[in-house]
Amino acid sequence: MHDLMNGVGAHEIIVETSRHDRSLHELEIEEISDIIRAYVARIIDLEGDRRVRYVLIFKNHGEGAGAHTISHSISQLIALPITPRAVKTKLMIARDYFALKERCIYCDVLQQELKGRKRLIGENEDFVAFAPFASRFPFEMCVLPKFHSSAFSRIGATQGRNLALILRDVLQKLDQKVGGPPYNLSLHDRPFLRPRGNYWNTIEEDFHWHIEILPQMSRITGFEWASGFFYNPLPPEVAARYLSSGGPV
Amino acid sequence: MHDLMNGVGAHEIIVETSRHDRSLHELEIEEISDIIRAYVARIIDLEGDRRVRYVLIFKNHGEGAGAHTISHSISQLIALPITPRAVKTKLMIARDYFALKERCIYCDVLQQELKGRKRLIGENEDFVAFAPFASRFPFEMCVLPKFHSSAFSRIGATQGRNLALILRDVLQKLDQKVGGPPYNLSLHDRPFLRPRGNYWNTIEEDFHWHIEILPQMSRITGFEWASGFFYNPLPPEVAARYLSSGGPV
Repeated sequence: MHDLMNGVGAHEIIVETSRHDRSLHELEIEEISDIIRAYVARIIDLEGDRRVRYVLIFKNHGEGAGAHTISHSISQLIALPITPRAVKTKLMIARDYFALKERCIYCDVLQQELKGRKRLIGENEDFVAFAPFASRFPFEMCVLPKFHSSAFSRIGATQGRNLALILRDVLQKLDQKVGGPPYNLSLHDRPFLRPRGNYWNTIEEDFHWHIEILPQMSRITGFEWASGFFYNPLPPEVAARYLSSGGPV
Repeated sequence: MHDLMNGVGAHEIIVETSRHDRSLHELEIEEISDIIRAYVARIIDLEGDRRVRYVLIFKNHGEGAGAHTISHSISQLIALPITPRAVKTKLMIARDYFALKERCIYCDVLQQELKGRKRLIGENEDFVAFAPFASRFPFEMCVLPKFHSSAFSRIGATQGRNLALILRDVLQKLDQKVGGPPYNLSLHDRPFLRPRGNYWNTIEEDFHWHIEILPQMSRITGFEWASGFFYNPLPPEVAARYLSSGGPV
């Protein structure tokens, strides 16, 4: 009676270190670069499976972020036969913006953040980390490549190392300045370009991959569930200043 | 430079009982009916304020549901100058369904649940409570009026009492059978029919108010945040059977 999607997919655990007592932000840059290389290798391998439409990589740090089953530092990968709803919404917003402005929305955000600098948390040759203008959570962070690219797996070796550097930098700031709150980290990548040759053929221009880091310092309430709106008492400018400075502002 | 919405609204606390040590499910039916009457009175009053577009009523029970600031049993009301994003999504889905089927989607769900009875948790003359087919959380519940109505504030006196009865019944089941987990409860009502006389003139047919109860027994992870999908290990049929029976199934 119903058209059901195929119950196909994958769930993989990426063990980030052999040391049980180390968190991601405590690893060497070469170790974090290895983790990024593992992400890339798994995505490229799964891209070969025609049934997979999307690979979602995420990390839960601390019990308050749902990391209660495995205490060892890991990332997780879930391969899905469809593009997730939240990803599709982002893609459509990016497409509409490009159609209107003839520019990538993320490149525009990047230029604005680099110019204003009020919400910057970290920066290097290839990446910028900032507190988003409409942050949903206190100390929410976005890590954005300075180079336009829709597909994370096309990252180069130097870029991978620079991603490791900025990730460790902002996670260390979160640990040292905010006392190591639980957080959820996720990679927002484009879907695989399927099922047809002409599938969403503007996606490479429309979308720009990025990483979201969502510290979880309080619980979601009925207001957020029912409205889809988020109550956040901490302005992103204050969060960025706090994370970038020597202490309270 | 930007068109900003008016920073107007209201945040009200509805104190459910004078007794500090009582939870909602422990109150008398007459007390719960009074709470429902208070909801109605506040909505009708706020409807008179032309700047308000939506009134969201919700309740957080237990620390794990964000109720950490006030331990006394309360409901909250937030009046907004816009219709929340999540509500708009529901309204649009209901409108599209009506356009396709010429029937209210909630009335159809109601008929299906009453016929199948596998996911029913409670029922009386005016209301039905069930575990939704695509439950996001273990023991998620939906309370739906058997009569079609888009506006909660048009509820009659007998209907109000029957709502009090079914609410207490399902919340007592949650307490007794599941050990009183934290939960978020929210009223999903239609927006006020503004700003124009012809604003969404099918909304009274399209939409059907209801109450969602979301037990919070685990934390949201990076997967849910990034995908908008929810991982729930408990099928709604098992949840309904467990809540309606004498114990584990």
